[in-house]
Amino acid sequence: MEQTVVAAVKGIVGAEHVFDRFEDRYCYTYDASAVTAGKEGMPALVAYPGSAAEVSALLKLANEYKFPVIPRGAGSNVSGGSIPCAGALVMVLTRLNKIVGIDRKNMVAEVEAGVITAEFQTEVEKLGLFYPPDPASKAFSTMGGNVAECAGGPRGAKYGVTRDYVLGLEVVLPTGEIIKTGARTMKCVAGYDLTRLMTGSEGTLGVVTKVIVKLLPLPEAKKTMLAIFDDMEKAAETVARVFMAGVIPTTLELLDNIYIRNIEAAVNVGLPVEAEAVLLIEVDGDKEVLDKQVGIIEGICREQGATVKVARDAKEADELWVARRAAFAAVSRVRPTIIGEDCTVPRDKIPEMVRIIRAIADKFDIIIAVLGHAGDGNLHATILTDERDRDEMARVEKAAEEIFRATLAMDGTLTGEHGIGLVKKKYLPLEVGEGGMMAMRAIKRALDPNNILNPELV
Amino acid sequence: MEQTVVAAVKGIVGAEHVFDRFEDRYCYTYDASAVTAGKEGMPALVAYPGSAAEVSALLKLANEYKFPVIPRGAGSNVSGGSIPCAGALVMVLTRLNKIVGIDRKNMVAEVEAGVITAEFQTEVEKLGLFYPPDPASKAFSTMGGNVAECAGGPRGAKYGVTRDYVLGLEVVLPTGEIIKTGARTMKCVAGYDLTRLMTGSEGTLGVVTKVIVKLLPLPEAKKTMLAIFDDMEKAAETVARVFMAGVIPTTLELLDNIYIRNIEAAVNVGLPVEAEAVLLIEVDGDKEVLDKQVGIIEGICREQGATVKVARDAKEADELWVARRAAFAAVSRVRPTIIGEDCTVPRDKIPEMVRIIRAIADKFDIIIAVLGHAGDGNLHATILTDERDRDEMARVEKAAEEIFRATLAMDGTLTGEHGIGLVKKKYLPLEVGEGGMMAMRAIKRALDPNNILNPELV
Repeated sequence: MEQTVVAAVKGIVGAEHVFDRFEDRYCYTYDASAVTAGKEGMPALVAYPGSAAEVSALLKLANEYKFPVIPRGAGSNVSGGSIPCAGALVMVLTRLNKIVGIDRKNMVAEVEAGVITAEFQTEVEKLGLFYPPDPASKAFSTMGGNVAECAGGPRGAKYGVTRDYVLGLEVVLPTGEIIKTGARTMKCVAGYDLTRLMTGSEGTLGVVTKVIVKLLPLPEAKKTMLAIFDDMEKAAETVARVFMAGVIPTTLELLDNIYIRNIEAAVNVGLPVEAEAVLLIEVDGDKEVLDKQVGIIEGICREQGATVKVARDAKEADELWVARRAAFAAVSRVRPTIIGEDCTVPRDKIPEMVRIIRAIADKFDIIIAVLGHAGDGNLHATILTDERDRDEMARVEKAAEEIFRATLAMDGTLTGEHGIGLVKKKYLPLEVGEGGMMAMRAIKRALDPNNILNPELV
Repeated sequence: MEQTVVAAVKGIVGAEHVFDRFEDRYCYTYDASAVTAGKEGMPALVAYPGSAAEVSALLKLANEYKFPVIPRGAGSNVSGGSIPCAGALVMVLTRLNKIVGIDRKNMVAEVEAGVITAEFQTEVEKLGLFYPPDPASKAFSTMGGNVAECAGGPRGAKYGVTRDYVLGLEVVLPTGEIIKTGARTMKCVAGYDLTRLMTGSEGTLGVVTKVIVKLLPLPEAKKTMLAIFDDMEKAAETVARVFMAGVIPTTLELLDNIYIRNIEAAVNVGLPVEAEAVLLIEVDGDKEVLDKQVGIIEGICREQGATVKVARDAKEADELWVARRAAFAAVSRVRPTIIGEDCTVPRDKIPEMVRIIRAIADKFDIIIAVLGHAGDGNLHATILTDERDRDEMARVEKAAEEIFRATLAMDGTLTGEHGIGLVKKKYLPLEVGEGGMMAMRAIKRALDPNNILNPELV
């Protein structure tokens, strides 16, 4: 990058918010995915803008000097959505970290992009309100990043994903214009839905600087239970049956024996290490209906041959959640490289999908553990491998492709909540077809004519 | 239109599905808005395609011969979203009228674009499932039209709008490519969210031919009540208070005295004709919680000085709904022209908005009745006028513009559910700004380079 450009960047955000030493830049060559930019993809500069106006000025500069810009929150995405390319400016949004306001009367909040998801949730809950999206990374992920990736989480079964809560945005377009999309109202159909177009666009169509979200009243109570199965097939079948009984649980998580054993070894909360599968189920809402819902779910689980334990108090429920949250860390003791897929299928296809995943693991002689937000069909087939083992990695890649093709064959999607990123870029045409790719590329070109923002993703 | 083109259109859809006589074409110069194309905007031809492939062939022809295409379902939109221009082909989608499937296990349905909303809802409810969006036009509006307009309705307060239920689409792009967007799964973040970009795009970015929607379990029970106020201000204040108490009613409709008197005169169900305002409130869900919710709402209404009547049975509840549904027809007895705005404001701004609407009515010496889906801040300020009275119409236009500006000043939107259409086209920049207009126009040009689909709307 020319020294005049570096000087201009420093002029915009202040020299103290710009990093250009090799060691500093190297820290931005990876995110939470298995992809790294490496030395070949070293960014030229890292800048922390302090306002939408500074983001705008940086993007105008990028268009003038034609350098790529990689926007980034906490970099906690697992799809390779914030990996730089050579000569890029990495733009980190974490200085925009103010909760602008929580409007209790209208159950709406406005936050800057760099606000940490869990910290926002804590503030909201103090007022008796509720922001449901709960990605596994919520303790460090940012609200802007959640929007860029359309983050999901275990509560998706009942409450949906980030998209369902975003009412409006302040976005800086790739060419530098600052726009406001959506409204602070529950309904808005004025013009094209730029709010949802931006949501999940992985930093390729604009840089989110502010987010306006809808809130709900905090549910009065919740009940948590664990259903223990000695037959994976039966556990998987149970998922659709619960919904068909008219009960929509907040979360319905499926964990296989690999997960159960490794979690128990890690956190020691008394999980049944012999079980083939467990379902971790939570319902929330008015006190008056929870016992009824628990009764219905318990009945269905028992019919399917499960043993059911309902947490007696908050402490027991918390232990179950500690176990669930430890899942990814726990399986990383098995092999050093963890590749978490997030193929999603219609709920009634979960048993078939689990069978297919197991058959593929056998066929390619690799380990695939299964954990899933089964309530919304979102299975995290987790490949436990070692990226240094080239031969195994070749088999892993083939296995992943077979999982993708099987998913699409049963009307599923390659990604329920992680995003396409660099990781699944080459498979996207399988899902959306040539026409879909054409439309997406046309939109990218229309809004980003110089291909400035996250150019390698599209 | 050249005879070769007419012949080609007949070749594509069959001569029996093409109308070219003046009298026939004239029938397509208007929709449910106050706008008409008139003789100047006479379409050249009306065609009823029978498949996505035929829609595609028509659009390819349109790109070759450069004629505009106006897609249309039932034409029940009230924003001038399906008004033709001179020389256009009107493309009516009502032959695509099959419910492709209702998947009970996954609570997902697939319908062709021309399926009537209410007929679909009836089929879904037979299976114990629920499709919440309920635009006033549901008895004749089409599912494809609902998607094109992102239709709302009274249940929006609790259940949201069409956007919240559309999981995927089959869409024919303006250039003729048939694409599938979204998935049949609850979550999908593969590529840009073309599903929501198309939803609410008013037939300018694509022709929807199939819709995949999410369904819910049919609520077990509901309770309906009427709160009668002798003070409009108090009624308007009640709205936000109900939500702040943690209760989310299915519907919360506000009707002013003009509506109350005219509805009662029309349907005679015993509405309180002296009341300044009423709130029609419904809650639904599990039986166990309805009485509690009714109690909370009743308490708040009484605190606000209202008399509350809870419907004792389904018959009494139905009468209230008959009254509500008769609203627009009932006020059309006052003056021959009804202009229903749908400005939407944050819930706590409803009292102020109602005051402003009344002041504007006084200032311009016109009649404005107020009815609203107050639960989501969506107020239908209804201007009762006579389009033949030029002087009054000039005042009506000024009044509408003042309502729009007041709405935007309180962080509201020009349209909660009706769409921009031709009716509000000139006001859209007030809401989305020059940057927003630029982005929207860029997207339109990208997907529709020859400006074929509904060209006068953008």
